[in-house]
Amino acid sequence: MNDITALILAAGKGTRMKSKLCKVLHTAAGRSLIDYVLDSVQALGAAKIVLVVGHQSQEVITAIELAGVEYAIQEPQLGTGHAVMAARDLLQGSTGHILILCGDIPLIRSETLSRFVECHAANNSGITVMTTIMDDPLGYGRIIRDDYGLIRAIVEEKDATPDQRLVCEINSGIYLVRAELLFSLLDRIGSDNAQHEYYLTDIVREAVCDGMPVHGFLVEDSREVIGINTRSELAKVSTIIWDSVRESLMRSGVTLLDPTTAYVDSRVKIGQDTIIHPNVTISGLSEIGDDCVIESGVYILDSRLGDGVRVLQGSRLDRAEVHDGTSVGPMAHLRPEATIGRNAKIGNFVEVKKSVIGDGSKASHLTYLGDSSIGKNVNIGCGTITCNYDGKKKHRTVIHDRCFVGSDVQFVAPVEVGPGSVIGAGSTITRDVPEKSLAVSRTKQKIYPLRKGQGSTEPDENRES
Amino acid sequence: MNDITALILAAGKGTRMKSKLCKVLHTAAGRSLIDYVLDSVQALGAAKIVLVVGHQSQEVITAIELAGVEYAIQEPQLGTGHAVMAARDLLQGSTGHILILCGDIPLIRSETLSRFVECHAANNSGITVMTTIMDDPLGYGRIIRDDYGLIRAIVEEKDATPDQRLVCEINSGIYLVRAELLFSLLDRIGSDNAQHEYYLTDIVREAVCDGMPVHGFLVEDSREVIGINTRSELAKVSTIIWDSVRESLMRSGVTLLDPTTAYVDSRVKIGQDTIIHPNVTISGLSEIGDDCVIESGVYILDSRLGDGVRVLQGSRLDRAEVHDGTSVGPMAHLRPEATIGRNAKIGNFVEVKKSVIGDGSKASHLTYLGDSSIGKNVNIGCGTITCNYDGKKKHRTVIHDRCFVGSDVQFVAPVEVGPGSVIGAGSTITRDVPEKSLAVSRTKQKIYPLRKGQGSTEPDENRES
Amino acid sequence: MNDITALILAAGKGTRMKSKLCKVLHTAAGRSLIDYVLDSVQALGAAKIVLVVGHQSQEVITAIELAGVEYAIQEPQLGTGHAVMAARDLLQGSTGHILILCGDIPLIRSETLSRFVECHAANNSGITVMTTIMDDPLGYGRIIRDDYGLIRAIVEEKDATPDQRLVCEINSGIYLVRAELLFSLLDRIGSDNAQHEYYLTDIVREAVCDGMPVHGFLVEDSREVIGINTRSELAKVSTIIWDSVRESLMRSGVTLLDPTTAYVDSRVKIGQDTIIHPNVTISGLSEIGDDCVIESGVYILDSRLGDGVRVLQGSRLDRAEVHDGTSVGPMAHLRPEATIGRNAKIGNFVEVKKSVIGDGSKASHLTYLGDSSIGKNVNIGCGTITCNYDGKKKHRTVIHDRCFVGSDVQFVAPVEVGPGSVIGAGSTITRDVPEKSLAVSRTKQKIYPLRKGQGSTEPDENRES
Repeated sequence: MNDITALILAAGKGTRMKSKLCKVLHTAAGRSLIDYVLDSVQALGAAKIVLVVGHQSQEVITAIELAGVEYAIQEPQLGTGHAVMAARDLLQGSTGHILILCGDIPLIRSETLSRFVECHAANNSGITVMTTIMDDPLGYGRIIRDDYGLIRAIVEEKDATPDQRLVCEINSGIYLVRAELLFSLLDRIGSDNAQHEYYLTDIVREAVCDGMPVHGFLVEDSREVIGINTRSELAKVSTIIWDSVRESLMRSGVTLLDPTTAYVDSRVKIGQDTIIHPNVTISGLSEIGDDCVIESGVYILDSRLGDGVRVLQGSRLDRAEVHDGTSVGPMAHLRPEATIGRNAKIGNFVEVKKSVIGDGSKASHLTYLGDSSIGKNVNIGCGTITCNYDGKKKHRTVIHDRCFVGSDVQFVAPVEVGPGSVIGAGSTITRDVPEKSLAVSRTKQKIYPLRKGQGSTEPDENRES
Repeated sequence: MNDITALILAAGKGTRMKSKLCKVLHTAAGRSLIDYVLDSVQALGAAKIVLVVGHQSQEVITAIELAGVEYAIQEPQLGTGHAVMAARDLLQGSTGHILILCGDIPLIRSETLSRFVECHAANNSGITVMTTIMDDPLGYGRIIRDDYGLIRAIVEEKDATPDQRLVCEINSGIYLVRAELLFSLLDRIGSDNAQHEYYLTDIVREAVCDGMPVHGFLVEDSREVIGINTRSELAKVSTIIWDSVRESLMRSGVTLLDPTTAYVDSRVKIGQDTIIHPNVTISGLSEIGDDCVIESGVYILDSRLGDGVRVLQGSRLDRAEVHDGTSVGPMAHLRPEATIGRNAKIGNFVEVKKSVIGDGSKASHLTYLGDSSIGKNVNIGCGTITCNYDGKKKHRTVIHDRCFVGSDVQFVAPVEVGPGSVIGAGSTITRDVPEKSLAVSRTKQKIYPLRKGQGSTEPDENRES
Repeated sequence: MNDITALILAAGKGTRMKSKLCKVLHTAAGRSLIDYVLDSVQALGAAKIVLVVGHQSQEVITAIELAGVEYAIQEPQLGTGHAVMAARDLLQGSTGHILILCGDIPLIRSETLSRFVECHAANNSGITVMTTIMDDPLGYGRIIRDDYGLIRAIVEEKDATPDQRLVCEINSGIYLVRAELLFSLLDRIGSDNAQHEYYLTDIVREAVCDGMPVHGFLVEDSREVIGINTRSELAKVSTIIWDSVRESLMRSGVTLLDPTTAYVDSRVKIGQDTIIHPNVTISGLSEIGDDCVIESGVYILDSRLGDGVRVLQGSRLDRAEVHDGTSVGPMAHLRPEATIGRNAKIGNFVEVKKSVIGDGSKASHLTYLGDSSIGKNVNIGCGTITCNYDGKKKHRTVIHDRCFVGSDVQFVAPVEVGPGSVIGAGSTITRDVPEKSLAVSRTKQKIYPLRKGQGSTEPDENRES
């Protein structure tokens, strides 16, 4: 059905979140609430998506950055009916049907929306209301059906009779309405109530008034449609999403040592026979290959790992790339634009940033490689530092294939070392080194007898020389 | 009611804890059991607090260090009645009422104690027993009430008739007794039983004997009054306390990505819109501002963070102070008396101890700053070390505003660098550097061609020179 | 009973595991499934153990490496009956009884197997089938008993009548069969079924056919006998095993701050009053003494810790040894063959490999000690590096008692420093240092005024000299 326009209500502040950030931008399992809703609506294939924004409207628009989404501003926010009215200009001319839903229901599935649309079409309905059954319906609008199963009324808690309060079918706040009908009904609703707000629910009353059949579409899993109002609910939804990812990963052949502490976001891809230790976070658009081991405490964001990669305990990968068979960590830090080749090793207390490290190369300990290009089969000694920053600009260090860099060497960039060269331990390299050379900047070792009681007094070579 | 003296029984070893440490000093959610009980009793506003100690009495007294608490020694430990007798001298002269409770009930709330006192007063009672309902009362003393609701007897499991065993109301072991009555009743109880112990429960029997009305005060949540006997119960109580902190944080506007692994102790304060990642521990008297991000694996003890501070993955802050907008970590270590200014950066593999770092300064990698004072907008190069220890004493390094310290520099303290100066990479700085100067201690870089097959042999500059 | 031969079926691939690795080699709580089964069978005291392998047979045989286990190859894998047939040669001549069980039931306890054997013997039975009660028996073979309690049939789901489907007692797939009977019955079963497989269950049908009594032995806890088929079940079993270890540790006097994230494998030993923080993994054959503290994020593999050892946040110990009273971490890395003496300190960002560190010695920060021998009461300065690798071989660094090594010192191995000597900060030590000497290799510090606007330009000592 291509005549659907989706109208997503995302103008609310979410007072109970106690937040400066508007509600739909809060994240669950690594993505904002509105992102999940947009995903489901896009998967439905809606012809057009209109988002009603209000509170922090600019932040919401900036955060979404999604082609094809149009925005209506609702300012001030005077209720759900008012939110739909705010989108009137953008919906004008829509000939099909309007799907109205809130931006704070991240668990809504596109399959559910599809079946909703099918039901609406099959009934040739003017209005269909998505409903669900709540064990405890307290506070929700109850769905009152007539003998034919059509919706006769939606009764709010405060207006409900004792009998009506026993009804467990409630209004989800998700509607499908024929476009021309929507605005003619909206014109008839007012704000003559305690809150002085325009309630979208009132269109149901108006439609029933006109003798129009209002259909109900019952969703089995109420979690799909219930909005998030508190940070506690936000945490619960995160767990639901993560649990679903965990089950799906395990089914596809990934081992999770403790599924309850594997925080893998929904868009992450992980290959078969990869093993995830406890307390690992993998988020964003990360992709992990087959046969990898990701140890405890590791945090991987928007990174790509090949097959057979080992990321040891406590390491952090942020927009990095690691190729097949390489070992990273423990306690290593790959920062953006770190690209590590195959069968390489980045060891403990090593940081790599904006650098390409070739196949088979090793930087095993206490090293910083920034703005560098390291060839293949290079050995970077312990304590090596690329001095990439001169206080004004960043400069590059280039070390070619098969070099052997001793320990505690500093490369004052820009500097280049030719293939097969050796740098002596403790050297500060300030000038280029040609290929197959030995470079060293070191002082002769002197030995003096210690006087009695001198203990560990520091020598003073300034005085001596 | 200001005529309450609280008597806390804390002499027991807690055999089932299997511990060298006495039971009330074991910690739940970061505080000792006795601390929680003392907090509740203090909030009640008791006129006087007496603690009966016995096992490891000195350790308990030292651990508490609380003004206004008096101690009675119970040695040996011959039962709860005996424990109260041990406090007789300290209670002598009390004209009001004695609140008797155990030191191993960390969940007791001061509100509950207040209502208990009110009930005791309203009944103008000589003895009131706090009771609760247990689903499974097995092993507890059953409360037998008469037709007027007064307590007729407390019957131990082994003495109970089959009917009495069905009673689910049990004795919590918490009593309010009129002072003069308490000791007159205690004088009448003996240790003529299998354990040869004096049971406090027996005062109820004696009071009933005398035809005195004994009132019961029922507590709804039995967890408040049930003592801890095993480490498994200790862990369960920790979870109850942490869960309560988690809910309260989320309600106040803090996001917990996974509440079940946020270990935030009850006295910690956290500001609105701060985000806590999984597996974070924040304990002691730490205070975290608004809009902070605390990543996974971070451990914060007794530290203060301003607003907008980011503490990245795996970092440790121990009695440190970090001001607004500063970023710490990943894998950084701030030790006691580390004070980091605003908008500064302490990066990966950096340790700071007893140092003040000014606003806007950066120590981004592999650095140790100990006993130092770093000005504003200073750049500390990668691999910088303050050599603060000469084997005998610690000395200070002072680096003034706007200095630029190259990589792999050692400051042999005491040493001072004037404002706006530059230290060349790889230098060992042993003498003061004036302002706006360049200091360097480096050797000329020499280059030799490698002989065929020489590979990576280390150079020997001793021989060469 | 010494006439038991155990036959363990471990030939299956485990299709639903979605794995290249065969099912019985997958691990739960740190050990492979087959390991647990072998442990229970060995504890039973079986005279002989035969393992039927098939899928990845060589990997299974290599992984087990257990004296006294014989292997039969089943290739191809045509059902459980066929698996037993494959072992016929190895079982030939067995005069006693054959215990047949699968290799994917890690929770089977040797006590249960013992009682099973006793029951079989007491009944003087030819065949005894281990059964259990399942709340939801769907998919399992139902046990149909006759009026005497003997097993009349095992009916598969698809062949069961509606009445039989209501039976909740199911076949566990574990059998005890008199040896000579086993093969005579096996000769009579065929593969005339949908899967063209030989089902071991059919021996029950054949025995009943012959009027032989078939006994059932009911196991109360069905988890003991239900095989693992998916990674989700694998995770659940890990949790069951870990939970059991957690309870047992707490009972024995170990504090677990959050038991649900203490990943301690079943063979690990931990002493009294040791405290384990959240998210700690201790695996293999590790042994931890009394009064230790193991902080969050720590990973300990096959290591031994004395009493009173503190392993701080995020540290990793892999086949290391740490003696009484020593502190390790936070964020330290002890690699294989690191042995740390008593009352020593290995601080943050320190890596130790193949090294012995003496009592009272300290390496507090940013250090790499590899292939070294460090005496007692040695102070290793921050940033010290043993340059143990020359690109071809590893060499040793020896530092004797009471040495004081300044910061940022490199030892170009092989090199030895005599007792009581001092190494100046920033030195590269390439030659041996005698006892009670001061060694230093440093360049005079030069100071130049900065020209206006020169800012932090790097000095060029090549040009200058």
